[in-house]
Amino acid sequence: MRTRMAYNQTAAQERLAGLKGKPFDLTGLDETSFRERMGKYICSSSYFSLYYWSQRLDEEVLVELQSLADECALVRQFQKMKNGAVMNQIEGAESEKRQVLHTACRDIFVEQPCHQEATDQAVRQLSKLKLFLEEIDGGHLCNARGETFTTLIHVGIGGSDLGPRSICEALKAYARPGRTVHFLSNVDPDDAAAVLHRADLARSLVAVVSKSGTTLETLTNEELVRKAFQAESLDPAKHCISITGEGSPMDAPQRYRRSFYMYDYIGGRYSSTSMVGLVTLGFFLGYEQILEFLEGASTMDYLSEEPDIRANQALLLALLGIWNHCYLGMSTQAVLPYSQALHRFPAHLQQLDMESNGKSVDRQAKRIDYRSGPVLWGECGTNGQHAFFQLLHQGTEIVPCEFIGFKRSQYGRDMEVDGTSSQQKLLANMLAQSVALARGEDSDSPNRAFPGNRPSSILLGQRLTPGSMGALLALYEAKVVFQGFAWNINSFDQEGVQLGKVLADRFLKEMAGDKSGGDPLAGFILETTGTL
Amino acid sequence: MRTRMAYNQTAAQERLAGLKGKPFDLTGLDETSFRERMGKYICSSSYFSLYYWSQRLDEEVLVELQSLADECALVRQFQKMKNGAVMNQIEGAESEKRQVLHTACRDIFVEQPCHQEATDQAVRQLSKLKLFLEEIDGGHLCNARGETFTTLIHVGIGGSDLGPRSICEALKAYARPGRTVHFLSNVDPDDAAAVLHRADLARSLVAVVSKSGTTLETLTNEELVRKAFQAESLDPAKHCISITGEGSPMDAPQRYRRSFYMYDYIGGRYSSTSMVGLVTLGFFLGYEQILEFLEGASTMDYLSEEPDIRANQALLLALLGIWNHCYLGMSTQAVLPYSQALHRFPAHLQQLDMESNGKSVDRQAKRIDYRSGPVLWGECGTNGQHAFFQLLHQGTEIVPCEFIGFKRSQYGRDMEVDGTSSQQKLLANMLAQSVALARGEDSDSPNRAFPGNRPSSILLGQRLTPGSMGALLALYEAKVVFQGFAWNINSFDQEGVQLGKVLADRFLKEMAGDKSGGDPLAGFILETTGTL
Repeated sequence: MRTRMAYNQTAAQERLAGLKGKPFDLTGLDETSFRERMGKYICSSSYFSLYYWSQRLDEEVLVELQSLADECALVRQFQKMKNGAVMNQIEGAESEKRQVLHTACRDIFVEQPCHQEATDQAVRQLSKLKLFLEEIDGGHLCNARGETFTTLIHVGIGGSDLGPRSICEALKAYARPGRTVHFLSNVDPDDAAAVLHRADLARSLVAVVSKSGTTLETLTNEELVRKAFQAESLDPAKHCISITGEGSPMDAPQRYRRSFYMYDYIGGRYSSTSMVGLVTLGFFLGYEQILEFLEGASTMDYLSEEPDIRANQALLLALLGIWNHCYLGMSTQAVLPYSQALHRFPAHLQQLDMESNGKSVDRQAKRIDYRSGPVLWGECGTNGQHAFFQLLHQGTEIVPCEFIGFKRSQYGRDMEVDGTSSQQKLLANMLAQSVALARGEDSDSPNRAFPGNRPSSILLGQRLTPGSMGALLALYEAKVVFQGFAWNINSFDQEGVQLGKVLADRFLKEMAGDKSGGDPLAGFILETTGTL
Repeated sequence: MRTRMAYNQTAAQERLAGLKGKPFDLTGLDETSFRERMGKYICSSSYFSLYYWSQRLDEEVLVELQSLADECALVRQFQKMKNGAVMNQIEGAESEKRQVLHTACRDIFVEQPCHQEATDQAVRQLSKLKLFLEEIDGGHLCNARGETFTTLIHVGIGGSDLGPRSICEALKAYARPGRTVHFLSNVDPDDAAAVLHRADLARSLVAVVSKSGTTLETLTNEELVRKAFQAESLDPAKHCISITGEGSPMDAPQRYRRSFYMYDYIGGRYSSTSMVGLVTLGFFLGYEQILEFLEGASTMDYLSEEPDIRANQALLLALLGIWNHCYLGMSTQAVLPYSQALHRFPAHLQQLDMESNGKSVDRQAKRIDYRSGPVLWGECGTNGQHAFFQLLHQGTEIVPCEFIGFKRSQYGRDMEVDGTSSQQKLLANMLAQSVALARGEDSDSPNRAFPGNRPSSILLGQRLTPGSMGALLALYEAKVVFQGFAWNINSFDQEGVQLGKVLADRFLKEMAGDKSGGDPLAGFILETTGTL
């Protein structure tokens, strides 16, 4: 079986290309056909049910998508990845040549993990973290005045920021009493000013996160934070910890009270279940909760090894996305959580998806002639209904939607108005949107007509807990990885961010008056825009 | 001059359709041509400079875009709108038939405003607000214990939420000491629980915002808030104020301590400069600051009447958008503020743009056969650089970008690292991204090559202040309106949200056990998904 074949080289390709001409018509759904599809197009796991009756497909398409998955050996590649194959590479070109082992961080609940060595490393860091958290709780690790730490300021950017930040926001309802977390990422000095303005520095730990120990924004913000401590006569070395690669410039006991390690087989955007996310989550939620979080992720990783696309949620989501994007021609993908706690989760997914699959070169270093990753975007419902849903229903751009919802609220503080609770209103709206997008509705006034035939899926869980959050995270990680395999691209590098860095450096050298490294064009732009 | 002609019915259409085949090649820019374009493609106003040298156009295209603007009478329609014409209507179909007068709210700095009556109404509300704020400051309007109010909880959704929320976030640096604002929008009960958890209710005012006084989410959240006050033995009527239409169910002195009015000639998404935004902004920032905010908006409204597209920023942005979307075929538009304070501004623009122009029917009630509004999305730089910029540079989807930046920070708390300040790093990165996207770069390794030719604009201001925030808001409002005129659609209604509401109501009736208004299909879905 060839394991590096793109979706459009399969035998299924031709049949799918034929089927895309007359995709299933959702506007014609009567009650009988509706009930039939509702019964068939559900994929359930221990954490979520995935309803996909409102996608524009039928049995024929599903059979071909299964063939596509089989021919491209998507699950087999996923297993190879978990087992430690060097998946982050491009044949015939310079590339990172690394293993991809974010799944090993959470593969700690079985006797024989898929990759023993990486899991051993993860377990060692976890033990160190457990001890660290106990020392904080017990007051052994405290500030110069002997007071406990109440606040953690997480300094990182991109993969060292969006995942941990969105998960902390999602699980705020489970925070330990008296514990606060702030995030600082942007090089914009106003970001730091706003965070430092709010934080009680004397009671704050600062977790500086950078694998290389050389990220411009993070080092700059660290300096700003250290200055702020000094301005309050506090010794930064007593407050700072680092999460970094072993041996990096940030692996330095004289500057950091403790260092936790991350490994080069885990890319930034896949690192939320490594120390990058766990140190901050552990401080915020406690050790037991992060174990539950990891267990959710690990469970989903094993479920993602199922070869039947109708029984593998991540694989199914991946294939539905490819059907909509590459066959039905939709440019974007909306993710719409009907859960305010997930308000930053689309931003994390945006990074995970677009940085992984926004590529134009395949794994044999050839330019591809098909579409890879879509633009992913989204905001929470019901808010979005009062904002951009107008375009979803009646616009000229067709946007496939993934709804995410939960049957129960986190806080359980709810009340009935007009016979239903807020949580019921939330769910009723989500379900109604999916039906409205699919079926549409005629009207004598053309401006009040709904064309329908707009595809969506619903991912429905019991409640957003640390466990289901872990599962949700791993579900989308696997989805993105499956899509990358199907497009035969390397979802694990990010060469596309390099040019901007190089050019920014030239502008900075001009600004600093360093004539050796700048360039005349940068100088000219700075002068013209008055930004020198 | 016909004033309701779509862009593709103009004489310019044919010429533009010809020119789109060979749009200007940005990758070929050498230093000389670069300098020439930099000198030519700037459009400056008192608040911003708009740089558009990195769009895929040349003089020929600009001449045709000017013709398009003239033939469609875009500026003339804008003036008619400001003067009170009934622009919110569709001929030959039932529609709202309303004036569109959000500009009148800020047209208070000239002797003869464009629409005297609407401006008079705005001034009366402003005077009432001034008095209200003075009473709070002076301690005449206080809680039952005689303490001053320190906190305002703003309850609204959609147009009554995103604008005010994003502007408060943007201007937090100018907040009056000791004043806090919270926003509550989602019907998700966890949203309310999280807000009520943080707020000091005894010292809180609650501003409930709904034009009709009947918005489901807002009324539900108001009830939750009122219950929370009662639970602390506080009388909600002493804490609640309303912003609503005169005579609505929320215009009720026995339930609200004060009511401010909004008028049906201002749509929700255009209402930030009406009482919808100003009550909360006034409490947060003070009366003088909101005058500055209004003055910025009003200045931009007058600048938007300039017929020369090279001297009218809003019109130019509108036409650049149409060039990229309708001629060059790009599906989405990214807005990327290099300013952390603007982190929620793209969400507001998403609503403003997609709810206004996500339409498929023209103003003569005919289905259109061209693309109207794009998907608008975005996040702050430099954060985005570490997230989705990979796709912007190397993905198969081409995304036109609008960068927004400021020369100076808000707090002025900055420091030099490696010879440059954080603010300089921020600007250097923004400028470098624009150059990198445009020029691209070859490489022997295909995975490290940048195709370039990806268009962007830069909007550069001095500093994000209440005044420049007002100007920025009005700039985008005018841009959206100009595009709607060019597409000959009604940018001021939102019929596309109705079907979802109707269906949600059926689900809710099923949930409440009300057999009269539900429907069997809703019941079946609730049963199947276990959400009954």
